[in-house]
Amino acid sequence: MSHETGAPQKKLIQTLNGQAQDIAPIWLMRQAGRYLPEYRKTREAAGSFLDLCYTPELAEEVTLQPIRRFGLDASIVFSDILVVPDGLGQKVSFVEGEGPVLEPITSVGELAKLELERVVPHLAPVYETLRRLRKSLPVETTLIGFAGAPWTVATYMVGGRSTPDQGAAKAWAYRAPEEFQTLIDLLTEATILHLSEQVEAGAEVLQLFDTWAGSLSEAAFRRYALEPAKRIAGALKAKFPHVPMIGFPRGAGPMAKDYFRETGISGLSIDTGMSLDWARRELQPLGCLQGNLDPLLLVAGGTEMRRGIETVLKAFSGAPFIFNLGHGIVPQTPPEHVTELVDIVRGWRG
Amino acid sequence: MSHETGAPQKKLIQTLNGQAQDIAPIWLMRQAGRYLPEYRKTREAAGSFLDLCYTPELAEEVTLQPIRRFGLDASIVFSDILVVPDGLGQKVSFVEGEGPVLEPITSVGELAKLELERVVPHLAPVYETLRRLRKSLPVETTLIGFAGAPWTVATYMVGGRSTPDQGAAKAWAYRAPEEFQTLIDLLTEATILHLSEQVEAGAEVLQLFDTWAGSLSEAAFRRYALEPAKRIAGALKAKFPHVPMIGFPRGAGPMAKDYFRETGISGLSIDTGMSLDWARRELQPLGCLQGNLDPLLLVAGGTEMRRGIETVLKAFSGAPFIFNLGHGIVPQTPPEHVTELVDIVRGWRG
Repeated sequence: MSHETGAPQKKLIQTLNGQAQDIAPIWLMRQAGRYLPEYRKTREAAGSFLDLCYTPELAEEVTLQPIRRFGLDASIVFSDILVVPDGLGQKVSFVEGEGPVLEPITSVGELAKLELERVVPHLAPVYETLRRLRKSLPVETTLIGFAGAPWTVATYMVGGRSTPDQGAAKAWAYRAPEEFQTLIDLLTEATILHLSEQVEAGAEVLQLFDTWAGSLSEAAFRRYALEPAKRIAGALKAKFPHVPMIGFPRGAGPMAKDYFRETGISGLSIDTGMSLDWARRELQPLGCLQGNLDPLLLVAGGTEMRRGIETVLKAFSGAPFIFNLGHGIVPQTPPEHVTELVDIVRGWRG
Repeated sequence: MSHETGAPQKKLIQTLNGQAQDIAPIWLMRQAGRYLPEYRKTREAAGSFLDLCYTPELAEEVTLQPIRRFGLDASIVFSDILVVPDGLGQKVSFVEGEGPVLEPITSVGELAKLELERVVPHLAPVYETLRRLRKSLPVETTLIGFAGAPWTVATYMVGGRSTPDQGAAKAWAYRAPEEFQTLIDLLTEATILHLSEQVEAGAEVLQLFDTWAGSLSEAAFRRYALEPAKRIAGALKAKFPHVPMIGFPRGAGPMAKDYFRETGISGLSIDTGMSLDWARRELQPLGCLQGNLDPLLLVAGGTEMRRGIETVLKAFSGAPFIFNLGHGIVPQTPPEHVTELVDIVRGWRG
């Protein structure tokens, strides 16, 4: 694999391997996105959102845009967590201003129509994008591959769209846990395949997004969030021992500690609502933390943003830490605030 | 005040005062609501949702409905957290299928038009509902008054509706913290007035709902959630030392501990996503816990519901605990599942 060279490790990978840095590496969730005028231009030319994901030269272009502007330490391949259901054969589309729309799956009969072996061939363009990026990215920039975690992806597959209380998926999980487990198991397998192919194509770090983990009860969290993440992290580690994985069980609160300890991941991404004090004390001893500036501070800019950035830096410096947001960057973010953020992080001495 | 009698304390109040019960008292957030056919009938007759809140005989009727059906240990007055902005003079309406719609307030000029002294006279019908309920409720049933916490109410006042990321309120808070603090302070005062009047009218316990506390960063949580709750709880305790308050900083994760410890409240309501294990260990020693069954388990019923109820009971028995949901009951809940829930809680021996 092209990434196994004798060159010194990149800064972000060193950090995930447990080495604290004087200057924290920085990247931003959804850094390739609508807040950038150059993204909106490419997006318009692409046709649909999925066309953009599946056209390697365009996906490569939008992935590179924030690297060109801000020189971030990592580049996350432009794709979406819903390419996996699309790969499995579920009908997925993105409606402007509405978000994703899927033909909901709510029975084992419909589940049976999904095809695991379809995922990798269908997602070939994503892997091609990664291969291109490994060549076009600056040598110091780490390439991140990613997937949605089974629970979060399942909420969209069952609900047919973003569901604020994840009611549809929970309804199925609670009514027929064995049936719902079949879906979670299928997604776990699909995620392992998809992440493995991303590593083969050049991803040096992986991130698993469990955006809707926070509303799960303790028992459901263990079953639908922690256990699948453990299986996924274990499978990837067995195949690619040198590729660190970052988990993001958003809103998990104190259960983030069990998740970090038991899944075997190298890094934990924490959301904006997470206590810095608690995270520093209880989570950072377990590995590298990543986060957690409020994306809305990046919209506001000014004194509050600067103070917020410094608070995060102070909380986590001196131990392995990657600067990031607590959730994805939002479309109304002025790009110049990102420039300022990067300057502050790079200029900060703890 | 009518509630200061020589009679023995009601079970829910005993529990909030630190006395563990063999059988946990139980009530459910939004127990008067659309899942009940009798509620839907009264609701239709009432005209608008706010008309229902402001017509004491109808508000009394819907408050009593779940008590008649299920014999719950507490009755929360039928009202809404947005009666406070309505009382302050902001235009509030409820659009069928859309939720609340407010004329957003986004400048100090608009803020200045709000009138604190308007709140209590405007909300007189709510207090009248409480006075009626004190007479019509069974003697063993505790009457709960409530208000939305300043931060959560502010998110609606600034956003004009339910905002998933609380972006509008945060944008203001981060751009002009002093201006936003003026709104928070005004709401803190209004909340103190509104809760005090509810006690005067017969409320025996108070609950403060901070539904959107979970997305706040640690610094913002302290400033906009914890500090106002501390001021509100302190003011009420000074006036009514025998009226316990329950706080509900939904999604606060580990910061729930600081909130519980520092605000001086008697009870803490915990959301579904809260770790039972951590809450038992870190929170319950600080006072009475309330929660946290997944409302979607109550929709599903069956084995999973029963197992979920028992898991919660096991986690919190032997120390002060009130059985409740982790969030409001949802409209698709079959009322017979609530009957079963109450039976299980009442029949359970830890």
